[in-house]
Amino acid sequence: MESLSVALGSRSYPIHIGTGLAERAELYAPHVRGAAAVITNDVVAPLYLERVRHALESAGARVTPLVVQDGERAKNWQTLDRLFEGLLGARLGRDATIVALGGGVIGDLAGFAAAVYQRGVALIQVPTTLLAQVDSSVGGKTAINHARGKNMIGAFHQPLAVISDVATLDTLSDRELRAGLAEVIKHGVALDERFVGWLEQNIERVLARDREALIYTVRHCCELKARVVADDERESGVRALLNLGHTFGHAIEAGTGFGPWLHGEAVAAGMVMAAQLSARLGLLPAPDAQRIGALVERAGLPTHGPQLAREQWHELMAIDKKNAGGRVRFVLLEAIGRAKLQAGVDERFVDEVIAAQGG
Amino acid sequence: MESLSVALGSRSYPIHIGTGLAERAELYAPHVRGAAAVITNDVVAPLYLERVRHALESAGARVTPLVVQDGERAKNWQTLDRLFEGLLGARLGRDATIVALGGGVIGDLAGFAAAVYQRGVALIQVPTTLLAQVDSSVGGKTAINHARGKNMIGAFHQPLAVISDVATLDTLSDRELRAGLAEVIKHGVALDERFVGWLEQNIERVLARDREALIYTVRHCCELKARVVADDERESGVRALLNLGHTFGHAIEAGTGFGPWLHGEAVAAGMVMAAQLSARLGLLPAPDAQRIGALVERAGLPTHGPQLAREQWHELMAIDKKNAGGRVRFVLLEAIGRAKLQAGVDERFVDEVIAAQGG
Repeated sequence: MESLSVALGSRSYPIHIGTGLAERAELYAPHVRGAAAVITNDVVAPLYLERVRHALESAGARVTPLVVQDGERAKNWQTLDRLFEGLLGARLGRDATIVALGGGVIGDLAGFAAAVYQRGVALIQVPTTLLAQVDSSVGGKTAINHARGKNMIGAFHQPLAVISDVATLDTLSDRELRAGLAEVIKHGVALDERFVGWLEQNIERVLARDREALIYTVRHCCELKARVVADDERESGVRALLNLGHTFGHAIEAGTGFGPWLHGEAVAAGMVMAAQLSARLGLLPAPDAQRIGALVERAGLPTHGPQLAREQWHELMAIDKKNAGGRVRFVLLEAIGRAKLQAGVDERFVDEVIAAQGG
Repeated sequence: MESLSVALGSRSYPIHIGTGLAERAELYAPHVRGAAAVITNDVVAPLYLERVRHALESAGARVTPLVVQDGERAKNWQTLDRLFEGLLGARLGRDATIVALGGGVIGDLAGFAAAVYQRGVALIQVPTTLLAQVDSSVGGKTAINHARGKNMIGAFHQPLAVISDVATLDTLSDRELRAGLAEVIKHGVALDERFVGWLEQNIERVLARDREALIYTVRHCCELKARVVADDERESGVRALLNLGHTFGHAIEAGTGFGPWLHGEAVAAGMVMAAQLSARLGLLPAPDAQRIGALVERAGLPTHGPQLAREQWHELMAIDKKNAGGRVRFVLLEAIGRAKLQAGVDERFVDEVIAAQGG
């Protein structure tokens, strides 16, 4: 097992990475005080719920499992309200611990439930997808979607621990694994050119689920992310750079009704679009944009967004959370590994990128 | 104008108390950066919305007013979702400021909206009821109700400023004024015996809305509360004492379906019940319990709860947020001005108090 720390003063917490960790009682024990709820979905529950429940019980917890439907569409208020019903029905108090067992949707949903249930209870993230292990389980972002936009309602609520068991990636579909790779590539493209080089050498190993390659990937992404979160917990600066691909990406997800595109797929296409926009603006050399597109393609991920009306793209991007003073802000690239936040991008260039999507 | 500060390090904020403050642009100006939404209700809007809007516009803000129905029943997810719809429809970004203009319900609801909209935006509290000015607008507690219990879903989200304009109390109904007095009396009974003495001398002046008496009352309660919040922002200790009367009180509100009893009325009866329980337990001298009942009665507030089934009382109290390890915790009194938190109260004594209600 490897452990690293997210340095946030008295709210610092460990990320444990290894195989077979989800069933180890001693990793939960420091963070439970009587009652725990495991929030998971109907795909993950048959695979891992009993192991996690057993570990929590061994750690001394009374366990309430709460199972929601799989998929991004469950990340809404209706699901959340059923979770509150379950938590209140089991009489879980402010001293309870919520365990988020699943991918990014479960982490966001259960994390937000923990953030607002009785004004906030303890949270442990047990991510079971590559996307959640490399990105969404670390850093305390939680949210649900609103009909008008993704992740519009949420909170910053740091977990007490992240338990990343790479053995759970064995049961991931190829499509989900690739979707996770989109966030892996994003970490490199936004912050670390050398890691992009490593991925270009090793992407086949990751796709083949070579355990050593997976552990290296999860640890390296968590290191990058932990540093960014420690510097800028509430995303007033550098943390926004990790939203590379997310302005276009969220528009893709919302514009297609949250479902047909996995989040990682939308981020992949959005990242290629952001690179193309950077190139059109003369910020990024065109060969670098092509290099990004080629890596995304080798990961088996989409390099183009869907065909949406121009007005719909702009409408959906206009409510992005990064915006300030009513102006859309894009994460652009000056080089591979060097992202920057920019407002006031000439709409013509955005339109050119949009026009090249679909088909 | 008098100003005091809630000392919370970098998140410290001022409470301004005086007459005519709601319309003073310079009190808003430091806290708005472009866009603001005023969340208020259909009773307060005709009285004060235009003044506040004008002040915000003078401070340079683009203002979006959002008006909800008056009353505790509006403090739910449905109302909140409509607010998000309005905020997103007006394209308010993370740099927007939400202004809560109204009583405790509006402060809780708009405060929670500010806590979770785009993971948190700036908040200014402009309380227009005595209850909100002496209690709920200070300290950052925000929440909505769940069918299974009051304030079960919420967040701690401190405002950037509290603007308490006692002139707005002129338009308050007598019933609302008295409901606010319940929280005033609670501050004294829980924390400050001398203030109880002052109230016994001056309660008629407060009921007659003598401005000097109102300003003294608001300032003194805010001083008491600011100190408690600075010591224990997240209610892990002393802050829980300000929930005196709220265990029984929340049960009264939930048990009667949120509406017939104003929050302050339920707290008044709940506080008398807590005093009676303390006396039955031999903790508080019986004459002190009677003294509390007498002051509550002089304020024109109920000294008895409604007749609910014994099981319903226990069921409703069992989900109180103060509970720990599945045990109900009561705020009890050792003396007037000296409250304490106690778990493991013998149910027989609780039953005796419950049995004496109604009629």
